[in-house]
Amino acid sequence: MCGVLREISPRVRSIKPLQSSVVALRAGQIEEELTQGVKKSFRQLINLIWGDPQSAGIKPLTFVRQVLSACLYPQLLDNDRLPADARQRAKALLSECQGGSLGSYTDLPGIPQVVREISDFITRRDGGVPSYPENILLAPGSQWALQNILNLLVHGGGGAGGGDGAVRSGVLTPVPTHVTSIMSLMGLGGVSVPYYLSEEQGWKVEVEELNRALEAAKPMCNPVAIYIINPGNPSGHVQSRKSIQDVIRFASEKRLFLLADEVYQDCIYKENIEFVSYKRVLAEMGPPFSNTVELASFHSTSKGFLGECGLRGGYVELVNMDPAVMKHVFTIFSKDNTPTPSQIALSVMANPPQPGDPSYSLYAVETQQIRTTVTGNVRRVHEVLSSLPGVSSQPVEGGAFAFPRLNLPSKAIRTAKELKMEPDTFYCLRLLENTGACIAPGSEYGQKDGTYHIRFCITAKRDKIEDLLTRLVAFHTQFMDEFS
Amino acid sequence: MCGVLREISPRVRSIKPLQSSVVALRAGQIEEELTQGVKKSFRQLINLIWGDPQSAGIKPLTFVRQVLSACLYPQLLDNDRLPADARQRAKALLSECQGGSLGSYTDLPGIPQVVREISDFITRRDGGVPSYPENILLAPGSQWALQNILNLLVHGGGGAGGGDGAVRSGVLTPVPTHVTSIMSLMGLGGVSVPYYLSEEQGWKVEVEELNRALEAAKPMCNPVAIYIINPGNPSGHVQSRKSIQDVIRFASEKRLFLLADEVYQDCIYKENIEFVSYKRVLAEMGPPFSNTVELASFHSTSKGFLGECGLRGGYVELVNMDPAVMKHVFTIFSKDNTPTPSQIALSVMANPPQPGDPSYSLYAVETQQIRTTVTGNVRRVHEVLSSLPGVSSQPVEGGAFAFPRLNLPSKAIRTAKELKMEPDTFYCLRLLENTGACIAPGSEYGQKDGTYHIRFCITAKRDKIEDLLTRLVAFHTQFMDEFS
Repeated sequence: MCGVLREISPRVRSIKPLQSSVVALRAGQIEEELTQGVKKSFRQLINLIWGDPQSAGIKPLTFVRQVLSACLYPQLLDNDRLPADARQRAKALLSECQGGSLGSYTDLPGIPQVVREISDFITRRDGGVPSYPENILLAPGSQWALQNILNLLVHGGGGAGGGDGAVRSGVLTPVPTHVTSIMSLMGLGGVSVPYYLSEEQGWKVEVEELNRALEAAKPMCNPVAIYIINPGNPSGHVQSRKSIQDVIRFASEKRLFLLADEVYQDCIYKENIEFVSYKRVLAEMGPPFSNTVELASFHSTSKGFLGECGLRGGYVELVNMDPAVMKHVFTIFSKDNTPTPSQIALSVMANPPQPGDPSYSLYAVETQQIRTTVTGNVRRVHEVLSSLPGVSSQPVEGGAFAFPRLNLPSKAIRTAKELKMEPDTFYCLRLLENTGACIAPGSEYGQKDGTYHIRFCITAKRDKIEDLLTRLVAFHTQFMDEFS
Repeated sequence: MCGVLREISPRVRSIKPLQSSVVALRAGQIEEELTQGVKKSFRQLINLIWGDPQSAGIKPLTFVRQVLSACLYPQLLDNDRLPADARQRAKALLSECQGGSLGSYTDLPGIPQVVREISDFITRRDGGVPSYPENILLAPGSQWALQNILNLLVHGGGGAGGGDGAVRSGVLTPVPTHVTSIMSLMGLGGVSVPYYLSEEQGWKVEVEELNRALEAAKPMCNPVAIYIINPGNPSGHVQSRKSIQDVIRFASEKRLFLLADEVYQDCIYKENIEFVSYKRVLAEMGPPFSNTVELASFHSTSKGFLGECGLRGGYVELVNMDPAVMKHVFTIFSKDNTPTPSQIALSVMANPPQPGDPSYSLYAVETQQIRTTVTGNVRRVHEVLSSLPGVSSQPVEGGAFAFPRLNLPSKAIRTAKELKMEPDTFYCLRLLENTGACIAPGSEYGQKDGTYHIRFCITAKRDKIEDLLTRLVAFHTQFMDEFS
């Protein structure tokens, strides 16, 4: 490597590129080849590698977009093509923007009305457990918010900016889990301490395993926090109240900061299962837990009914933070403003049209349609996967992904290893080459040694799911034949 | 400090809160007091502390907002209330979004059309020096892009993530300069190495001073880069081609990475002065400079005619980067997507309506109005400041700020120090309390010991400027009387 930039910061060098790039990158090349007229056995790719509902044909909610367009182009505020409540919301939001424009910087932590709406939303969601606007910070996506909190928690080796010789900070992270959070952690010089979810028990979090992970980590790092994603990505597991209590007790006993990634809180697909927030359970447990355990809960406009990944809106609510620490939190978040369109999307997520509002019925129909579609997808995926030899699947209770396990023939595993490839990556690349279906290998999310998985998005239009399943079934049968 | 979060990362502790918070915070309180009916000698605040044109009454460009609203609410694509070229642009942009929606994640580095438009814009701007889409990365604001590049360049003390005992990285930064970049640097454990701009020469960058700063820094850190902001913030200086050549030669000789913050490139207010980019000068210098000096150039939708601070759109173009390093750059930027509305604003900035397009004449009128307003502001500010005793001002050639020097009476300086306050902070707080005018003290941007300044935004509606000047003149006269 030549050039002035001879040495790349080890912080950055330790960040592995998104491994799904292997499959996603090849998908990009194939798309290019198709455009150039290269003949393939398929005409189009079907890409369900990311949790990106709108790219998979789910339509945006009309009210979100109406409020956004009226805020951005206020000439529409007197346009009867937009319903009165959308225009009214836009006016109210603009009245709290400097100069009445989305083009101005907003105050920290954001447009006051948006922060109030979020705190009201949380209070309603948690059955009256109070939420305070001053504990809420907005960010361009929940991952930015998480990165800011990690920045506070994580000391690099030797400690950037002082504290030489300090031990690196560790964060307990589930296996499997999506990679973005771990990239943030590694980027800060932190250590990811893996705890395994119990696949056999539907990807349950087990306290025994948390204890094992913590003890195993101690010689290497100083564990400071535990990261949990509920509902799970990619696991699809939804934690019970009891399980959340267990984790809170563990965090309290071990003095760990709780990072609760709850971005899939609206994505629940099984009857008799409900999402309960860490905040609520913590409050209900009472002292000494409710007034000591430090918690950061993250939510986002990218998931749930909105599915507005492109708008990048997220927030974090902080609980039991020392006021002296909160000052630093504000300083970090003050480094930049959350984009105003992201804030508008957060407003609608937290405060959707209510019965009696002009936009209520359309909003209700649209959200119901999405719910029906995705619940149907989950059933259909389960049905098809159950029929495939060598595939076993835990129930998808929530979240945005199916994560079935592949019992691959040993010949396939050998072939993959000869190619210096993870066996499930080999499977996904072959699937992509042969059928144009783009999904992710489990090895990118972490999995127990010797187990293999695939992940694909279920928050998609039905015909996309059918298309994927058709290609997957044909390929899988042939693959199992070839390698058995 | 109690709680699990006992130790805050030293990386974070080293970030000082934005010092303007002292004045801005008090302004917030006063606003609150006014709302509650507390009697003051003024009815309203006038706030020109930030470079935030739309909060200061500058109207957004219609075409930007039309394209945005059509992209976000595609039902408007067949609405005759929007001009054909705005709808056409929206259609073209949406056709390159996954699922035809701004709600989807975009490919890295962004919507392909936007990246092409930016690279064409740079090529035109630089008189044909070619720009390649693959060297351009989008970000939610130029400061995020800068932070990502700093993350690559800067090793913390001991090196987060390895490299124990390594020396901390230093970045040469101008005095005065705005604080956001320095916050990013400190947040990464880097060292800010100050070089003083020569106020007497209109805030010129002097190579002798760069050499002095570099030598002085060597015992403390390993200088890896030089950060330049041209046109200057807060200095208002515009570098000549000759001065840029000098800096490039210095960077080449000392093997420093060049960080060129060029977000004010459209903000030039003096005849016979033009903005020339570092990229262009570097190319024109030929080898060995043009093919070795590593450069990152930043631009933004927040400044210039768009003034869309709230949308958070920025980009960086990289020059002469080693391909192996570029891989890491992509990895860092791949951690998150740039919000789609930010990308749409970048599209319009890079590719505004052209003569013959339906929206051209309105666009031309609006941009001309802004230019006329701001150029008029600069003249008017200069006129008024020149008339004030104890105020001297370098010409504002470009940028968004006036940064006059205050020759404060020694009694005022003593009084401030007794209050444990910087004298110009004391001045600004008194101005705020007495007149409701909110501007920033020079001490927040760095200045030579014993010199004092104030900064305020000039990209504002004329009546805001007049209002500020009226309050400032009355206050200043009284202040000088009181302390002389």
